[in-house]
Amino acid sequence: MVIHLARYRHAGEVRWATVTDGGLSPLTGSYASTADLIRDGVDDWRSAVGGPTRLPIGSVELLSPVTTPCRVLCQGANYRQHAIESGMDPDARPFNLFFDKTDASVTGPDAPVTRPAHVRLLDHEVELALVLRKHVNHAETVTAENLHEYVFGVTIANDLSARDVQLPQGQFLKGKSYRGFCPVGPYLAVPEPEEFPLLDDLELSLAVNGEPRQHDSTRNMLYRPAETLTELTTFCDLSPGDLLLTGTPHGCTATTPPALVRRLATALLPEDVLWRMFTRTNLRKPYLKPGDVVTAGIRSPDGSIDLGRQRTTITAP
Amino acid sequence: MVIHLARYRHAGEVRWATVTDGGLSPLTGSYASTADLIRDGVDDWRSAVGGPTRLPIGSVELLSPVTTPCRVLCQGANYRQHAIESGMDPDARPFNLFFDKTDASVTGPDAPVTRPAHVRLLDHEVELALVLRKHVNHAETVTAENLHEYVFGVTIANDLSARDVQLPQGQFLKGKSYRGFCPVGPYLAVPEPEEFPLLDDLELSLAVNGEPRQHDSTRNMLYRPAETLTELTTFCDLSPGDLLLTGTPHGCTATTPPALVRRLATALLPEDVLWRMFTRTNLRKPYLKPGDVVTAGIRSPDGSIDLGRQRTTITAP
Repeated sequence: MVIHLARYRHAGEVRWATVTDGGLSPLTGSYASTADLIRDGVDDWRSAVGGPTRLPIGSVELLSPVTTPCRVLCQGANYRQHAIESGMDPDARPFNLFFDKTDASVTGPDAPVTRPAHVRLLDHEVELALVLRKHVNHAETVTAENLHEYVFGVTIANDLSARDVQLPQGQFLKGKSYRGFCPVGPYLAVPEPEEFPLLDDLELSLAVNGEPRQHDSTRNMLYRPAETLTELTTFCDLSPGDLLLTGTPHGCTATTPPALVRRLATALLPEDVLWRMFTRTNLRKPYLKPGDVVTAGIRSPDGSIDLGRQRTTITAP
Repeated sequence: MVIHLARYRHAGEVRWATVTDGGLSPLTGSYASTADLIRDGVDDWRSAVGGPTRLPIGSVELLSPVTTPCRVLCQGANYRQHAIESGMDPDARPFNLFFDKTDASVTGPDAPVTRPAHVRLLDHEVELALVLRKHVNHAETVTAENLHEYVFGVTIANDLSARDVQLPQGQFLKGKSYRGFCPVGPYLAVPEPEEFPLLDDLELSLAVNGEPRQHDSTRNMLYRPAETLTELTTFCDLSPGDLLLTGTPHGCTATTPPALVRRLATALLPEDVLWRMFTRTNLRKPYLKPGDVVTAGIRSPDGSIDLGRQRTTITAP
C-alpha cells in the first residue's frame, strides 16, 4: 500500500504524520529533515498508519514535506504538448533538458507567494516531483527495476516562473528561483517497490481561480525517471531528500510562436526590440497577479496515490 | 596580513595548513568541511602562520580548499571584453547574468579532468571565486563596507564548459557540471576586513600547454561582489563554504559571431543546421583535448594575495 506522509505545524510544533481518510496520524519521532525521516522513520510511519491519535487536516498548517537545504533539479519541456508549445519538436529533440532552481524557492503547499515588484509575467507549472532516497557521487545506471532504490516518493511541485526574467535574459535560475517560487506538497507518497509503475500513470491538474489551466498524464512524459536519473548522475551528486521536478504539461500561460515566425522576427528586429514586443504581447495574457489563487493536484486514476491539493495565493510585495 | 590557507593530503591524512614562502604550516585541528574551518579555525590558523612544522608544498597532494556539498553559483559575461566576445554589448546589458554548476564538478587544483566521450568543444574559464562566510535565508543588502561579513576569502576556479552541450542545447547546468569540470584552489586567501579592496585589482591568467590564453584584471568586472551578493540573496540562500564564481575574462576558445551575422544566419537556416555549422566551424579551434595541460593563477600586483597555480591535465575517458 502506498503510504502518504505529511509535515505540519500544530500548536507551535513541527511534526510528521501519515495521512488516511482526511486525517493525520502523527509519527512518534520528530525528524528535523526529510533525509532524517527517510533514514530513521520507516518503523514509525508504518506503525502510525491508522493509529489512534487523529488530527483533522484542516486543523493544522501543512508544510513542505521536503526540507531545505536540498537540491531542486528540473527537467524542461518533458511533455509532448508542452514541448510543442515551447517551440520544440518533441520527436526531433535528441537531449534531456536539465536546469535547477535554488532551494530558496521552496515553500509550503498553502503558503502565499509574493510576486516580486519587477515581475509582470508570472507563470505556473505543475509538476510531479520525485523525492530522492540515496547518496550518489558517481555515475550510476538506474533502471525501472532499481528505481525504488533511488526514489523515496513523490509529491507535487509548482515550478513558478518569471517569464520576463527567464526568457528575455536567458536566465532560468534567477527567473525560477525567487523566494516562494516552488510550492511543494502537501503529501509525500511512498510506494512499495512493486508499486512504482503507478508513477507512469498519474493525472496532473492545475487551475487558476477555479478555471482549469493544465491537465495531463505522466504517460505523456518524454524522458522517464530511470533514464533521467542515469544521465543526472553523470554531472550531479544526489542526496536523500533532494527533489527532481519531472517537467510540466501544456497549458502554461507562455507559449512560443512557430519556428518560422521566430526566425523571421529574429532576422528583422534587434534583440531588445524583439523582447520588448514579447513582453508587450504577453502582458495581454492571463499571467498570475496578486489576488489569484492557484490550485494544483496529482493523483492516480484509481486513487491509490493522491498527493492532495496545493492552494497558492499570489500576493503583492 | 592576508592569510593563505591550503587543504592537502599527506601520508593518507587530509589536513589544513597556512601557506608561507612555499611551505605549509599545518593547523593542529582537523576540519571536515570548509564551513567547519570557517566556524572553528580562526585561532588555529592565526597561530599556525609561520609555525615550526614546515612541509614543502611539493611533498603533498593539494586538494580543493572548498569541500562539497556546497553551492557553486556563477556570473556570466561579467568582464567587458568577454561580454563582447559572447555577442553582448557590455554597456547595454541591464542585468547581472546568473547560473550555477553542480558541486559534482568540484575537484582539486592539480587533479586530472576527464573530457567526456561525447564532448568535443571543451573550453576553459579562469575565474576569481568568492568563498562565502555567512548563512543567509532572506534578502539582504551587501555593501563594500560589510562585504567581509559575507565573504570569507577567495580562490581560483576554472569553469570548464562543454560548449557543444551548453550552447546548441541551451544547457548551462549540464554543459558546465560534468564531474571534474570545476578545479578549485590551490590557496584560499583570507583578507582582513580592511584588505578587501585588494579584490578589486587582481590579475587572472590562464595558459594551455604554456601558451597564454586568458589575462585580465578584476578591475574590468561589470557587476562587483557587493551588488552581486545583494541581488543573489533575493533568490538564493547562502551557506558558509559556498562558492560564487565571478565570471571569466576574454580569451576563451568559443566566441560568438557579430549580432548581424547571427540574425541573418538565424533567418536563413533551421536551428539544427545552424548548430551543426557552429560545431563544424568550432572544431577547427584549439579546444581542450586529452593530453593538454591547463595552468591558471590569480594574484595581486604587489603579491600580497597569491592564490597559487592550478595545473589541470585533460584526459580521455
